[in-house]
Amino acid sequence: MSVTEMIERKRDGGRFSELDVVWLIGNYTRGEIPDYQMAALLMAIYWQGLDSNELAWWTEAMLHSGDVLDFSAMAQPKVDKHSTGGVGDKVSIPLGPMAAACGVVVPMMSGRGLGHTGGTVDKLESIPGFKTALDPDRFTEIVHRHGIVLAGQSETLVPADRLIYALRDTTGTVPSIPLIASSIMSKKLAEGLDALVLDVKVGSGAFMKDEESARLLAETMVGIGRSHGTRVVALLTAMDQPLGAEVGNANEIAESIAVLKGEGPPDVVEIVYRLAVEMLIAGGITQDPADAMERLAKAVSSGAALEKFGDVIAAQDGDRAVLEDPSRLPQPANSSELTAPRAGVVTRCAALDIGHAAVRLGAGRASKEDHIDPAVGFTIHAKVGDAVGKGDSLASVNWNDRARLETAMELLEQAWEIGDGPAPDSKLVIGEVR
Amino acid sequence: MSVTEMIERKRDGGRFSELDVVWLIGNYTRGEIPDYQMAALLMAIYWQGLDSNELAWWTEAMLHSGDVLDFSAMAQPKVDKHSTGGVGDKVSIPLGPMAAACGVVVPMMSGRGLGHTGGTVDKLESIPGFKTALDPDRFTEIVHRHGIVLAGQSETLVPADRLIYALRDTTGTVPSIPLIASSIMSKKLAEGLDALVLDVKVGSGAFMKDEESARLLAETMVGIGRSHGTRVVALLTAMDQPLGAEVGNANEIAESIAVLKGEGPPDVVEIVYRLAVEMLIAGGITQDPADAMERLAKAVSSGAALEKFGDVIAAQDGDRAVLEDPSRLPQPANSSELTAPRAGVVTRCAALDIGHAAVRLGAGRASKEDHIDPAVGFTIHAKVGDAVGKGDSLASVNWNDRARLETAMELLEQAWEIGDGPAPDSKLVIGEVR
Repeated sequence: MSVTEMIERKRDGGRFSELDVVWLIGNYTRGEIPDYQMAALLMAIYWQGLDSNELAWWTEAMLHSGDVLDFSAMAQPKVDKHSTGGVGDKVSIPLGPMAAACGVVVPMMSGRGLGHTGGTVDKLESIPGFKTALDPDRFTEIVHRHGIVLAGQSETLVPADRLIYALRDTTGTVPSIPLIASSIMSKKLAEGLDALVLDVKVGSGAFMKDEESARLLAETMVGIGRSHGTRVVALLTAMDQPLGAEVGNANEIAESIAVLKGEGPPDVVEIVYRLAVEMLIAGGITQDPADAMERLAKAVSSGAALEKFGDVIAAQDGDRAVLEDPSRLPQPANSSELTAPRAGVVTRCAALDIGHAAVRLGAGRASKEDHIDPAVGFTIHAKVGDAVGKGDSLASVNWNDRARLETAMELLEQAWEIGDGPAPDSKLVIGEVR
Repeated sequence: MSVTEMIERKRDGGRFSELDVVWLIGNYTRGEIPDYQMAALLMAIYWQGLDSNELAWWTEAMLHSGDVLDFSAMAQPKVDKHSTGGVGDKVSIPLGPMAAACGVVVPMMSGRGLGHTGGTVDKLESIPGFKTALDPDRFTEIVHRHGIVLAGQSETLVPADRLIYALRDTTGTVPSIPLIASSIMSKKLAEGLDALVLDVKVGSGAFMKDEESARLLAETMVGIGRSHGTRVVALLTAMDQPLGAEVGNANEIAESIAVLKGEGPPDVVEIVYRLAVEMLIAGGITQDPADAMERLAKAVSSGAALEKFGDVIAAQDGDRAVLEDPSRLPQPANSSELTAPRAGVVTRCAALDIGHAAVRLGAGRASKEDHIDPAVGFTIHAKVGDAVGKGDSLASVNWNDRARLETAMELLEQAWEIGDGPAPDSKLVIGEVR
């Protein structure tokens, strides 16, 4: 089998053998297959897909292209969570410590923000001193000591994904469900997990715009987990408006701390608890959702979850005093208000526009090389269904650079729609796949 | 517009502007666009196609990527012919001199054989001394002196096609009608033609297996000609069995000489005359097919066409004495017969099998690097519809290497089918597009 034959076979709707896939991914990772052949093959996969066997082999081959973590020496269940990305999605930050405080080991590796969606790693790095680039020994040591680590993606895990993702990014082959699913799952399964909980975002502010494609992605990832022998549960959750009130970096850490203190906005709290219950059940801590809720509530009310976050901040060289004094987080120099042009009910608060406005403000990245300003961001005061008076603040804009403020404001103004009638009903958790 | 955006746009069924296409082909030819992006774009075009405007711009951009010939100083019409390739297809060789003898200027550039189809350049090179690699000055000088040249593809014409074709060859993007059409037409239009006659082969031994796809390719190429302002006529002709009796190289030259002497097998003669009539009419020599036939018959009976072939052989350093003494062409050391296993009527004489057998025998190329043996080949004695007795020779195999003979024979045996009933009727010229 040559690469040309593999491209032609996939182009014509044929299937690969396990040997084909192992040979392809191995040789591509070693630089023995040229990018132009891989690009053509990825475009053929964009059209023809991969069946469940091909996808399982593809994911395994990616997963074994580099180091694979092994925490089998630890008796506790190893469970991680992954979100497909949204605006204001700080869920991982309170979720990890809450699950860890209940006895789940969380060897979490997260990504940086790109485009309109933020990234957990960027948010964590707004904590003074906090390091997310950890070498494998330190990563393992922190997991063993605290039962949780909150790191960036390791360079030594799944090198095939870095190569293939970079190629997809410039060849129009990002939006392919099998390629998205294998990219996510190879990285997560390389963490040596017993179970994985997925938050698949659906809506105008998510990569998956409709429930059908989100469900297909969720089913694909759950299927890969099944082939690998790892329990995977996916919730489909709404991403039409931002999650919570805070969109940015340092301000999202402050909101996460509030959740860990039993406060925080109801939508963030609901998603965090729903996912945390799934983590506890998938990890075998309990089989009863009510019991899981009780354990999680106790971890928060006792301060154990907050303490766990403090431990991991300290272990990763961060300033744990931010937990008691969030003003130690980077603060913006200025604040401006976006006000309601009329009285009425908010019928739209578009995550996509707000996410793009955050990039313009400096809180996100248009390209991988961009630097972010951790202090800037938005605090949203009026979400869908809220009644507002004319001149009321819809959002506070926390800014450092006037030119960036102005360009962000242009876009931010488009995000809100104020009408007369009641806002459309919307569910936060749309469905689940297990 | 970035290349990534162009790939995404084509992937999603969108269209390019003229500027997009000119920018893309220009930058790719200059090495400023990486092969992996072009490969993904070509695969997107494989799926989504190019509309008639895009295709006209694409072909023009390719055509202007290198030198463009200009014979406008010559008063006579410049007309060439191109075949999409078949087995035993030596038509260009007698056709060019016949048309030139009737006053058409034929600045012909042809290709080498690859896979199961032979190439005009390989056949011509079996004439002792004959050179097909001509520098532009010599090419032009021969055209001016003799009104015809029979050369290989010039390195200075359409460099974009060489780059894109090499990429398509390894990325599963060869069988795309717009890409095939633009590749052929850019090279032919760069010859500075007034008109072009196409022989689009249809059938199991052709690249286009069915009339529908052949017609679509023909219409696409005629459309490109129209956009460019060049008259293009296409005949669709059958390629289920080889054309003529000879399949190889030197033996196809001998058969071509026979046609120029008023002999030759009826199928070759029919195709040569049909295409030659189109060349004379497209070139404006006459508007009356009967008159064109008469002129061509006279060019043959007077010896003018054979003389023209002799002139061009001599001008390209070949041994023109082969015309009177074809035994000066390379001769095989041995000959074996493939005999009929039973009596009956030939119902199949498969060009595809015979073409592949010719590659095994050494008369063709499996890969571009292969060398060919000009002396070896087949002489076919029984074609579809012919009655044969048991033990009659179906074909003589002219060979130099016993191992090659044996492997060729295995395949050759599969090519014939002998039945009881009458053979299916078949037309040689299936249709025309103008």
